[in-house]
Amino acid sequence: MISHRSRILLPLGQRVVDKLIRLIDVELESIGAMKISMPILGPRGLWDKTSRWESMSSELLQVKDRHGVEWCLQPTAEEMCTELISQLPALKKRMLPLMVYQTTEKFRDEMNPRFGLLRARQFLMKDLYSFDADSSSASQTYEMVCEVYDRIFRDRLGLETFKVTAQPGVHGGSQSHEYHLKNPLEEDGIHFCSRCGTGSKREDGSHKCECGEPSAVDTFSTVEVAHTFQLGTKYSQALSAMSYNNTPFEMCCFGIGVSRLLPAMISLLSKTDEVVRLPPVVAPFSAAVVVTKSLMPNVITELTLSSLDRQLRGGVLLDDRVEDSIGKRIKSLQEIGIPRIIESYIPSAGNCRSSLSKAIGVINTGKLSICTFIVYL
Amino acid sequence: MISHRSRILLPLGQRVVDKLIRLIDVELESIGAMKISMPILGPRGLWDKTSRWESMSSELLQVKDRHGVEWCLQPTAEEMCTELISQLPALKKRMLPLMVYQTTEKFRDEMNPRFGLLRARQFLMKDLYSFDADSSSASQTYEMVCEVYDRIFRDRLGLETFKVTAQPGVHGGSQSHEYHLKNPLEEDGIHFCSRCGTGSKREDGSHKCECGEPSAVDTFSTVEVAHTFQLGTKYSQALSAMSYNNTPFEMCCFGIGVSRLLPAMISLLSKTDEVVRLPPVVAPFSAAVVVTKSLMPNVITELTLSSLDRQLRGGVLLDDRVEDSIGKRIKSLQEIGIPRIIESYIPSAGNCRSSLSKAIGVINTGKLSICTFIVYL
Repeated sequence: MISHRSRILLPLGQRVVDKLIRLIDVELESIGAMKISMPILGPRGLWDKTSRWESMSSELLQVKDRHGVEWCLQPTAEEMCTELISQLPALKKRMLPLMVYQTTEKFRDEMNPRFGLLRARQFLMKDLYSFDADSSSASQTYEMVCEVYDRIFRDRLGLETFKVTAQPGVHGGSQSHEYHLKNPLEEDGIHFCSRCGTGSKREDGSHKCECGEPSAVDTFSTVEVAHTFQLGTKYSQALSAMSYNNTPFEMCCFGIGVSRLLPAMISLLSKTDEVVRLPPVVAPFSAAVVVTKSLMPNVITELTLSSLDRQLRGGVLLDDRVEDSIGKRIKSLQEIGIPRIIESYIPSAGNCRSSLSKAIGVINTGKLSICTFIVYL
Repeated sequence: MISHRSRILLPLGQRVVDKLIRLIDVELESIGAMKISMPILGPRGLWDKTSRWESMSSELLQVKDRHGVEWCLQPTAEEMCTELISQLPALKKRMLPLMVYQTTEKFRDEMNPRFGLLRARQFLMKDLYSFDADSSSASQTYEMVCEVYDRIFRDRLGLETFKVTAQPGVHGGSQSHEYHLKNPLEEDGIHFCSRCGTGSKREDGSHKCECGEPSAVDTFSTVEVAHTFQLGTKYSQALSAMSYNNTPFEMCCFGIGVSRLLPAMISLLSKTDEVVRLPPVVAPFSAAVVVTKSLMPNVITELTLSSLDRQLRGGVLLDDRVEDSIGKRIKSLQEIGIPRIIESYIPSAGNCRSSLSKAIGVINTGKLSICTFIVYL
């Protein structure tokens, strides 16, 4: 929904985003990362300490409060997070790596916001910051979080991502990788070698793959959905965040573009513009039940819904648009990407069958009768 | 954590806030309200349409983007939400009341941010907007949402709230109520009649209670945690949001101060400054297991944690601070308000007892031995 160059997330999209946030929380919690929330407004004084008020100024949306103090709407939180860690009591060795993350709204004063949520001025990003005592343990932490990213994208969401080396850019540091999804919009692009599985940004020129087999290198249009950086000590030095051995922390940072993942996934998985497909684990509802008017305020419908709700995580939608035909409603439910659609009906005697589809990942419609319903209780 | 007049939510507080958000989501979903997200930046043009750019200017944090367009960091979203509804295809009668809500960061350029999260420049608020065809159905919707508020505060969180009539103020409209919690900070205050259960803001002068028994009226210091308004057609008229009968929608709005609820609950329930108490349903963890060094990488500990995790919603904390004494760790877990604390130990032969406390709402410590653990599997 476009409103004055901003976007409102409507109920179906909101459900997908909420599911993405929870999925990421579970995976990051599994490696001991802790969730926090940092303020959206960052004070200029803090950003001056790393000279990024200057170097990022054209992208920073700036605010002056009633006392004349200058702030920016933070596009990222290295400064704020490092400042936080510098204020903590000394960390013991066994507390490292310390990993904190947040999923909050970020801002970038885009010259030309476009492609909807893909390149918006306000976007929802999960950003994780890690703190280690030395660079070799920082590299281990980097690998550990990258493995979790693979688990999130490949195992949980079932997405084919392309991980490419990238320039650290304004964030600084020694190493950086981006995670890309195929996308026709020409928003971004990569070279990728299908043989050795390495790649680089299209803007970096040609790709020298490790296997030395340039014929396996393909160049295609993509969209970036995550990035990771080994930051070194740029921020910890500037903000005096010291480890137990009295040297500045070795930091990494890791971002997932949560709000841009929504259109990126839809674009990748949907075959046509009219029909939305999403990974089943983040589909807005895990099932929909289509009822006729007579079954609307019916105990069967109530029981069907509560039974499905117990069996399936992720919510069950009751389609109560009784003025429309069953066929029209099923079509519209297919269009919004609900993986199971169940039509509730009272069967004629002797005609009981179990037809709730168990397939995941494709749209299935099935009829759920009183008899099959009892099977499922 | 104070950082330049802003606050960072640390891991324990974040868990409480996340649980509050989910609790509110479940309750609002139960009456058919739909969750959305509206942008933080509101364009001046939209705010001019209701003249609130002018009337609220001292509180609005303002931003100019690189194209010179003016925006505010929205403190509330009546304009944005009404604009959204005005852009929808015509709503059918059975779709009403339409209720949409969000839980997002709001901003107010406070002259003097104070009391931490209680009066902060950035705050997390759940705001719900309802749209009805006429004022009598709007009144019904108002009552329905107020009942859900009672369920959230009284039944789910176990909090004694005081509902008082209030001036609609800058929001406009005919009726308004505030929900207050007792709080010693003198941030706010009310008159309340213990006999008839009605009250008003202290700043409105004396309270005329319905029962006519002024001796039952008490005046005390409070903090506001929620407010509700019957808005009438102020916003729908200004933004041309029309109902199926071609008259402007009758609107209500309903807010819960999610981030300020955290300190307000702690202040109400904690007996001393050193010890945090929260409603068990939103305590940061539902239980903690304290282990000795020898039990740390032990299958017993693993099984204990997973068993507790299955039985209790809300997360189980493993206290691995093995360099501290058991007593010190139990004391610190009590201080952060975890309702159940279990000490894991291997009992001497023949000395099995079940001591996991089942009490809710008070801190209990118990020992969980191999024997009792098997009982719980």
